Amino acid sequence: MTTPRFDTLLLTGAAGALGTELRRALAPLTRTLRLNDREEIADLTDGEEAAICDLADEKAAMAMCEGVDAIVHFGGAPLEKPWDEVLNSSIRGSYHIYEGARRHGVKRVVYASSVHAIGFHAIESHIDATAPHRPDSLYGLSKCFVEDLSRLYWDKYGIESAMLRIFSSYPEPRDRRMLWSWLSFDDMTALVIAALTAPHVGHTIAFGSSDNPMKAFDNRLAGHLGWQPGDSSAPFREGIEARTDTPNPADKAVQNYGGWFCNLGHPDDEAN
Amino acid sequence: MTTPRFDTLLLTGAAGALGTELRRALAPLTRTLRLNDREEIADLTDGEEAAICDLADEKAAMAMCEGVDAIVHFGGAPLEKPWDEVLNSSIRGSYHIYEGARRHGVKRVVYASSVHAIGFHAIESHIDATAPHRPDSLYGLSKCFVEDLSRLYWDKYGIESAMLRIFSSYPEPRDRRMLWSWLSFDDMTALVIAALTAPHVGHTIAFGSSDNPMKAFDNRLAGHLGWQPGDSSAPFREGIEARTDTPNPADKAVQNYGGWFCNLGHPDDEAN
Amino acid sequence: MTTPRFDTLLLTGAAGALGTELRRALAPLTRTLRLNDREEIADLTDGEEAAICDLADEKAAMAMCEGVDAIVHFGGAPLEKPWDEVLNSSIRGSYHIYEGARRHGVKRVVYASSVHAIGFHAIESHIDATAPHRPDSLYGLSKCFVEDLSRLYWDKYGIESAMLRIFSSYPEPRDRRMLWSWLSFDDMTALVIAALTAPHVGHTIAFGSSDNPMKAFDNRLAGHLGWQPGDSSAPFREGIEARTDTPNPADKAVQNYGGWFCNLGHPDDEAN
Amino acid sequence: MTTPRFDTLLLTGAAGALGTELRRALAPLTRTLRLNDREEIADLTDGEEAAICDLADEKAAMAMCEGVDAIVHFGGAPLEKPWDEVLNSSIRGSYHIYEGARRHGVKRVVYASSVHAIGFHAIESHIDATAPHRPDSLYGLSKCFVEDLSRLYWDKYGIESAMLRIFSSYPEPRDRRMLWSWLSFDDMTALVIAALTAPHVGHTIAFGSSDNPMKAFDNRLAGHLGWQPGDSSAPFREGIEARTDTPNPADKAVQNYGGWFCNLGHPDDEAN
Amino acid sequence: MTTPRFDTLLLTGAAGALGTELRRALAPLTRTLRLNDREEIADLTDGEEAAICDLADEKAAMAMCEGVDAIVHFGGAPLEKPWDEVLNSSIRGSYHIYEGARRHGVKRVVYASSVHAIGFHAIESHIDATAPHRPDSLYGLSKCFVEDLSRLYWDKYGIESAMLRIFSSYPEPRDRRMLWSWLSFDDMTALVIAALTAPHVGHTIAFGSSDNPMKAFDNRLAGHLGWQPGDSSAPFREGIEARTDTPNPADKAVQNYGGWFCNLGHPDDEAN
Amino acid sequence: MTTPRFDTLLLTGAAGALGTELRRALAPLTRTLRLNDREEIADLTDGEEAAICDLADEKAAMAMCEGVDAIVHFGGAPLEKPWDEVLNSSIRGSYHIYEGARRHGVKRVVYASSVHAIGFHAIESHIDATAPHRPDSLYGLSKCFVEDLSRLYWDKYGIESAMLRIFSSYPEPRDRRMLWSWLSFDDMTALVIAALTAPHVGHTIAFGSSDNPMKAFDNRLAGHLGWQPGDSSAPFREGIEARTDTPNPADKAVQNYGGWFCNLGHPDDEAN
Repeated sequence: MTTPRFDTLLLTGAAGALGTELRRALAPLTRTLRLNDREEIADLTDGEEAAICDLADEKAAMAMCEGVDAIVHFGGAPLEKPWDEVLNSSIRGSYHIYEGARRHGVKRVVYASSVHAIGFHAIESHIDATAPHRPDSLYGLSKCFVEDLSRLYWDKYGIESAMLRIFSSYPEPRDRRMLWSWLSFDDMTALVIAALTAPHVGHTIAFGSSDNPMKAFDNRLAGHLGWQPGDSSAPFREGIEARTDTPNPADKAVQNYGGWFCNLGHPDDEAN
Repeated sequence: MTTPRFDTLLLTGAAGALGTELRRALAPLTRTLRLNDREEIADLTDGEEAAICDLADEKAAMAMCEGVDAIVHFGGAPLEKPWDEVLNSSIRGSYHIYEGARRHGVKRVVYASSVHAIGFHAIESHIDATAPHRPDSLYGLSKCFVEDLSRLYWDKYGIESAMLRIFSSYPEPRDRRMLWSWLSFDDMTALVIAALTAPHVGHTIAFGSSDNPMKAFDNRLAGHLGWQPGDSSAPFREGIEARTDTPNPADKAVQNYGGWFCNLGHPDDEAN
Repeated sequence: MTTPRFDTLLLTGAAGALGTELRRALAPLTRTLRLNDREEIADLTDGEEAAICDLADEKAAMAMCEGVDAIVHFGGAPLEKPWDEVLNSSIRGSYHIYEGARRHGVKRVVYASSVHAIGFHAIESHIDATAPHRPDSLYGLSKCFVEDLSRLYWDKYGIESAMLRIFSSYPEPRDRRMLWSWLSFDDMTALVIAALTAPHVGHTIAFGSSDNPMKAFDNRLAGHLGWQPGDSSAPFREGIEARTDTPNPADKAVQNYGGWFCNLGHPDDEAN
Repeated sequence: MTTPRFDTLLLTGAAGALGTELRRALAPLTRTLRLNDREEIADLTDGEEAAICDLADEKAAMAMCEGVDAIVHFGGAPLEKPWDEVLNSSIRGSYHIYEGARRHGVKRVVYASSVHAIGFHAIESHIDATAPHRPDSLYGLSKCFVEDLSRLYWDKYGIESAMLRIFSSYPEPRDRRMLWSWLSFDDMTALVIAALTAPHVGHTIAFGSSDNPMKAFDNRLAGHLGWQPGDSSAPFREGIEARTDTPNPADKAVQNYGGWFCNLGHPDDEAN
Repeated sequence: MTTPRFDTLLLTGAAGALGTELRRALAPLTRTLRLNDREEIADLTDGEEAAICDLADEKAAMAMCEGVDAIVHFGGAPLEKPWDEVLNSSIRGSYHIYEGARRHGVKRVVYASSVHAIGFHAIESHIDATAPHRPDSLYGLSKCFVEDLSRLYWDKYGIESAMLRIFSSYPEPRDRRMLWSWLSFDDMTALVIAALTAPHVGHTIAFGSSDNPMKAFDNRLAGHLGWQPGDSSAPFREGIEARTDTPNPADKAVQNYGGWFCNLGHPDDEAN
Repeated sequence: MTTPRFDTLLLTGAAGALGTELRRALAPLTRTLRLNDREEIADLTDGEEAAICDLADEKAAMAMCEGVDAIVHFGGAPLEKPWDEVLNSSIRGSYHIYEGARRHGVKRVVYASSVHAIGFHAIESHIDATAPHRPDSLYGLSKCFVEDLSRLYWDKYGIESAMLRIFSSYPEPRDRRMLWSWLSFDDMTALVIAALTAPHVGHTIAFGSSDNPMKAFDNRLAGHLGWQPGDSSAPFREGIEARTDTPNPADKAVQNYGGWFCNLGHPDDEAN
């Protein structure tokens, strides 16, 4: 694309691992890429501008949505955290983003949801996007909340949203579960771009894993995004199997989408 | 039942309209009925004890779950409210109840969810309990949150929960929507008792309306609760139709479960 | 109801067997009951007015929709007929009724569709209203056409329609098929009234048989009409079984909803 | 019915508890009731004749199907048994019955299948008759076999069959599971008669429990049998709850249809 | 294929844009290609013969089906037209074709149905071929009629039919909707050939769009046709986006399959 | 894979056509490949050991499961056979294999099930693995039995099983049905290996046909096996069509998955 499609995009969670990938990938799409995180971002390039604040800061979070065409919302607590952190950064923070979008007329939000929103469903059920929520953690619960929040903002306020249920986005697959759950960085960024640019999104829930040989879900309900993953865990399989033990078929972490999250204890217990 | 089935039941929202009905109805089931609300409860009877606190008060809310066999959780913001109130009383408050239940070994929770958790589904779709959430308000969104929270606490911690999606629980039906959505007080209390005493609940979502001639949903997935509503809106129909206008078929409030909630503006706009 | 709900209702097919029942049943609902048929109606009562024309007569058919609140459309070729008759009286005629309704602002149409629109589905499949059309005759095909026509007029023009798939509406059940397919006249008229007066109809397809012990379909998707049949084929069973042979399980007429229509030859062959 | 509907009915398992009930109930339907069991039946009445043999005896089992209009097949190993017994009496025995039916032109078979054919499905899933088999025992496995066998004999040879998945048929409900699973003797015999006399059966799978307040499955796919249970576990509930402990929600026997069968060890281990 | 598979194929609508493509593509499959249109076809080649008539001409239309192995029925009113034209050329005309096929023993018909038969379904629902009809126009209504007509002729008379729901068949995609709806001419002709030559068709409904990156429906129920589209809208995307405005997510034409047909007024209004 | 993944694999049916292919394909995966068949296997290679016995021999069949990591169970009666042979070699024999697995701690079984377990389903229904059994033969019935048996051994004893419903595994496709049902030997062996090595199998039913242009079923529920067929019937199509007649669309063998098995008579009739 020669002319950028957007004037201003807002990217939250810009300092995270996926955010860093997205900075690179989104640059060609927009004149200005506004980067949000809690911490200072040192290496701003041309076309980037910083919007440093905690998403839990209502005024700041809403203010940075002004003048924005679309939001790529990847901020919030990464992985399982104590309740207070989940509540503030993910639940309250995401509410601020959606309210900011509503008040400032933002048209579309692309959100980093997660497999952990449906982590207690069995892999053998091969669910699609209509399956009920079954979070496996407070982390997953906060993703469920944002999925429902965004549904309200579409049904009532007409803000389009794509909920990308990121499975396991890492430089390469690390364990046998990632044989089906791995999402390469290139496929992840392509998915975000597809969701940003599709002619019609409405409210879409998409599952995000690469074109791995093992398929664990039914993604047809996101077909209108026009995303086709291009990477595969296949080249990594032999190495992974050499390094890791045979899974125990009776283990919840093996049977369910959420993997080891299903066996995690409560974060507030661990925090004590 | 001659001997009470429970030693101690906790009822939140005890001072509300439905809570007041439940005090009367639950008395025979338990030796002690612990009553929670934010405001003092003046007229305690034998077998009742007060536990006055804001559900947003983490320590107090968790403490009152100690020694409790089961919780009937009807507390939280009634109807649509500004975000801060929804967040504190319904989202944070309900988290405190579930964490209190987990820490103190409570076995079962019965929760007043709402039709507004699925208010943007069309009546013609006759959904069942597997339909995805489509909240019609912040109120409905908080109900979605508790449904997902309770699912986590069942899947991970083995606490049984019944989510009762109360439709329109009033002394009598008031408008044409209530011809199908009305839930009499007697049917409401019978539903709570069924959920408290069923041999197996696991995680159950039940729709709550009386045996009205007009049926708007499919409640078979709650059949194991053993609840059969006994009242009907039929005797009220002629009066309602005489007092109210013919509905406009193009109105979202007519087409969708949520009724006039679908047309409500954002509560934070109104609050300003 | 003391005051009639409608000013003017139009009833097509008013001289037919079902139309005659409906004249009696609809009278209390409306100040004026406009009666359409091809032949003169001799015995007009107070509150009735005649609108005699062939439905295939575009101008006349449309004109009689003027000033009408709602239409009960039971006109058209009864049972299987040669194509020309089906085309003119049922397909063209029904188009004229819907166009008349659109041009004159009629809000709701209640139509006598038929089991023969889905007559080639197997009874064992216990279909609901979302099952695809499988007509068993030109008669059934014309019913499919009107169901689709009415869907268009709801989706595009906001005219509500109830498609009542009448099974076997006779004074009493006549054969073993009618043990499950019989619709008493009282249940038939109650169904029409339910469809005329329900607070929300949108586009609804309802199956019409009485509360016979044998159930052959799933009618939950019409639950919002508020109709509950009250009659049953049970008292007629012994007599029917004494008079009729044991059915052949390999017969299409026994296996499928459409009964003997499934074995009918082409009407244009027979017409020659 | 004044004239018996059948000339000769064959009842297998005639000496069992359910068979004894059926002897009484089927008598008015048939001129001759042929009674099969392995042991002598002492108290033959008018209209009864004995056909004593082991169902595993191919020649004898097939021979007794001669001249029979319909078969009520309740024979075979009751409850869980070692493999050899299950194989011989239930699998081989039932094959002999179906082959006997085919060779002698019997038109319809009514079979005592069991909840244990689907015992490992969760109660919360509220399955219908299309759910895949999930036997909970060798006993349940043999029921699955006969259900599949009968499907073949319908699809290929046109012999109608009703598979009645008997839940818990006892004089009265004994434990909390039977609050939803109990099938009274009167409802059981009425179900058999409905299946014998329905105008169309084809291949039908019906769930058999009484009209208990707690509903655990979806029986609409057997609606064409015309059976409505009339008894209820409700009057027994208080007594059962007084005598039995609160169920453990984590117990497979509580979560699944099969109850305590889900926790049974392998019968061949116990047999040693 | 060296030897033509068919002796005589009949192609209706042979002078239209798609018909012209089909003349070229079907030539190798048949010794004689009989071409029907209302207007003279000037450039007949070897192996082609003309059968010029209006499909509304019953005798002529039926007569041209004589001696035909299979029919490719692409005739009828293209796009939205006044009712009289839709009725005569599409509804009556198609009836004549099916009756001609029945009377002359034609084995299979391949029909140009359309996305407009289901144009009011939402793209996000990703329907398959079992979704109920929701026409968006009189044009779409006539397609529904022929789909139902062909179902009758398969169920009752054993004539196989493939209903090809052509999405947007043009030389290249023209607007953002065609990013998912475009069907290249090569893919269109390949689909017709697949439907003509598949070993089993029965009654099949297939959705017709190319292998565009954006997928809008579920075509698995036509998998037995053996058709795999080979073209894609991808190379045209950048150009289309440069030339066209961002879609309005609240527009029915954006949300639903039918596109701008959903916003079309009634053709008889425009005709006046 | 450089190091064999398994110490000992047991292959039953090792002398059959598919067994012979599997000997070659499985060799690299295991240190020892134990080969079972009824007849002597002459050409044992390094790493192979023979375990010759009839599967109906309980002691011998169970004994050979000792020390085995996983079983590839391809033994049993091939194609339709008289009941005694089906009973002994397939039903009893498979029970011995599963009991041997349970007693000796074998973790996973891969079984050669068949399309004939669901042979009476219509191709147009495009079933997935949840479709009920509809066997087309005693052969298919025995496959249903083993599918149910393996489900019990997973649900109760935690033995993982993959049921591979082999369609038509031959060196090349032979008739028009095989245009969609053909499974090349390479795809067959790859499917077995995928099932043996997938990180999670639980209880999986997979349909086995190559990547033929014509698709007849929905295999998504086996997606976690990670199998993608690579061969196609396409190159054989022209030759097959030249050698074989046009199918009769009214033939059960054309309409249903089972093909000519649907028209086979009873094997015990033929045996006489």
